[in-house]
Amino acid sequence: MKLNIAVLPGDGIGPEVTNQAIKALKAIASEFNHNFKFTTADVGAVAIDNHNDALPDKTLDLCKNSDAILFGAIGHPKYDNNPSAKVRPEQGLLKLRKELGLYANIRPVKAYKTLLDKSPLKKHIIEGTDISIYRELTGGIYFGEKHLSKDGDYASDLCSYSREEIERIAHLAFVEAEHRNHKVTLVDKANVLESSRLWRKVVKEVAEQYSDVTLDFLFVDNAAMQMILNPKQFDVILTENMFGDIISDEASVIGGSIGLLASASVGDTYAMFEPIHGSYPQAADKGIANPIASILSAAMLLSHFNLHNEAELIRLAVEKSLKLNISTPDINSVVNTVTTSNVGDFIEDFI
Amino acid sequence: MKLNIAVLPGDGIGPEVTNQAIKALKAIASEFNHNFKFTTADVGAVAIDNHNDALPDKTLDLCKNSDAILFGAIGHPKYDNNPSAKVRPEQGLLKLRKELGLYANIRPVKAYKTLLDKSPLKKHIIEGTDISIYRELTGGIYFGEKHLSKDGDYASDLCSYSREEIERIAHLAFVEAEHRNHKVTLVDKANVLESSRLWRKVVKEVAEQYSDVTLDFLFVDNAAMQMILNPKQFDVILTENMFGDIISDEASVIGGSIGLLASASVGDTYAMFEPIHGSYPQAADKGIANPIASILSAAMLLSHFNLHNEAELIRLAVEKSLKLNISTPDINSVVNTVTTSNVGDFIEDFI
Ligand SMILES: CC(C)[C@H](C(=O)O)[C@@H](O)C(=O)O
Ligand SMILES: CC(C)[C@H](C(=O)O)[C@@H](O)C(=O)O
Repeated sequence: MKLNIAVLPGDGIGPEVTNQAIKALKAIASEFNHNFKFTTADVGAVAIDNHNDALPDKTLDLCKNSDAILFGAIGHPKYDNNPSAKVRPEQGLLKLRKELGLYANIRPVKAYKTLLDKSPLKKHIIEGTDISIYRELTGGIYFGEKHLSKDGDYASDLCSYSREEIERIAHLAFVEAEHRNHKVTLVDKANVLESSRLWRKVVKEVAEQYSDVTLDFLFVDNAAMQMILNPKQFDVILTENMFGDIISDEASVIGGSIGLLASASVGDTYAMFEPIHGSYPQAADKGIANPIASILSAAMLLSHFNLHNEAELIRLAVEKSLKLNISTPDINSVVNTVTTSNVGDFIEDFI
Repeated sequence: MKLNIAVLPGDGIGPEVTNQAIKALKAIASEFNHNFKFTTADVGAVAIDNHNDALPDKTLDLCKNSDAILFGAIGHPKYDNNPSAKVRPEQGLLKLRKELGLYANIRPVKAYKTLLDKSPLKKHIIEGTDISIYRELTGGIYFGEKHLSKDGDYASDLCSYSREEIERIAHLAFVEAEHRNHKVTLVDKANVLESSRLWRKVVKEVAEQYSDVTLDFLFVDNAAMQMILNPKQFDVILTENMFGDIISDEASVIGGSIGLLASASVGDTYAMFEPIHGSYPQAADKGIANPIASILSAAMLLSHFNLHNEAELIRLAVEKSLKLNISTPDINSVVNTVTTSNVGDFIEDFI
């Protein structure tokens, strides 16, 4: 298969972890005789520095003309604490999601057998956890109208949703549940928010078309608690943008490190693959960043194009690296000399 | 001291846990020669059933004419799954908070020595955790303008904050930090939300008046993760309404049960004390509801009136009950025959 892959490494640890994912994909290409072409472009803080724009047109065009996008991470502290910054790295990512119509962000959460001891949670709580989180990605309060009063003393953000925005991701979640354990849990705050009540109404209607899937509801505050008390109760979680952001980062503790969690952002036309961890500028260029999330995002990319054997081989290589403790310090309590690229090299060789 | 206490038991397990708190307060009154007068009124689903209003005027008047309010819990599933219900139990609680100007909700989170094993988290993670969460309670998206389109296919909620709303609770949080470990962590999403950027700006300004307190920032997604990875890093957490709702429910897992967490909601004039758990209708009238959160809320009530010895005695009684395993099934893995009122009786007797 021939694939044009746009590579957007971004900021902080983005470039180094993305490099390992590319190594894995190149190994797959040579092993399975595929033709993967990689083209790199700037996004985020690095794009602001180079082009004064968090998402330059050139980058967006490249994405639109590629078959898939491999994304690193964006964000830099010099913007976080500057409330009046006019351009922000995050705008690059948000605009990209919006322009490409990537409305569904799929975040799998699994407890790896070899890592059960690394989690802050007790083994019997997490053992066997296997969740697929469907986070709506182009609506809600992230994209609602923003307002700051002239005197700078009043600010607001609007959270809005339409029936269509809810329906399209709900269908994806229910189809996924049909291939899994037949359960969808909608996370909302329908006892307070009008937008959540719309979610509840529309998702209930969609559910009627999937008679073999059970639909459950949890308020987001309770969900944040249940995710830790009993993560095994979940199969597919469906939720709006901001709740999905919070709940999925929280869920990362199950696997022992956020450095393990991959994600796919899909729409009707484009697809992007990115680790859920951020740019962690403090860790950049130290060789300590865990590349597994990025490498597993590459596996999700392969699955997306129905290259299931290829994806499976990457996952196997990852599990092997975990078993052999060829892991970065975040999950390695035995040796702390294994670097980001050591992990990438091992996975490349294994493939 | 003479205190008029309004009692609003509410729904589900609200009445039974509140009864135990009253028993504790009566025991304190007789032991320390105080004069506490309790007057009960309806709120929530029970108020809708009885008066077709989640917060009848009579209840609000009682609260305004009392020195303090002891609140149980509200909520009933028959409203949760009915998106078009016109009156909802939650409106009673939200209106009460707004009308009484209870803008700061203070939620202490502690890992009790005797309960370390009950938490889903590993002992070394939670041991020594002692957090005080300051959640803004009368602003943000809970109280913003709500909109539902005529055809019912579009809904929105507005999240807004003003400088004053942020300043007043920020001062309370910093004063608290001065009496604790001198650290405030602001939880926001300033990389995306305009309202969060206002929080960051105003809180930074307030911080300048408290030179012995360190101010830290965490994005809410990261905070949800850090709360589980390393809860000991926190001293005082300051945050807006919805983030506080999510983060504090999540933090309840540290203590092993949400049935242990008390809260105080204070403003410039009134003060209300309530467990952070909800109405759990499934558990109602079974004698399995944990009354500790409500009893500890009563202790917060006493502290509020500077009755520190009295509050301390309640806390001592609670710790004793935990040590002796006179606890409801949520935290008792040895005997599961201890009922809600057994716990209340023990604490009453101890006092
Ligand atoms: C960087 C930020 C805008 C982004 C988000 O909140 O969506 C990130 O946290 C994520 O979860 O992908
Ligand atoms: C019942 C509900 C409106 C309430 C809230 O979210 O504020 C509750 O969850 C709480 O935390 O006190």
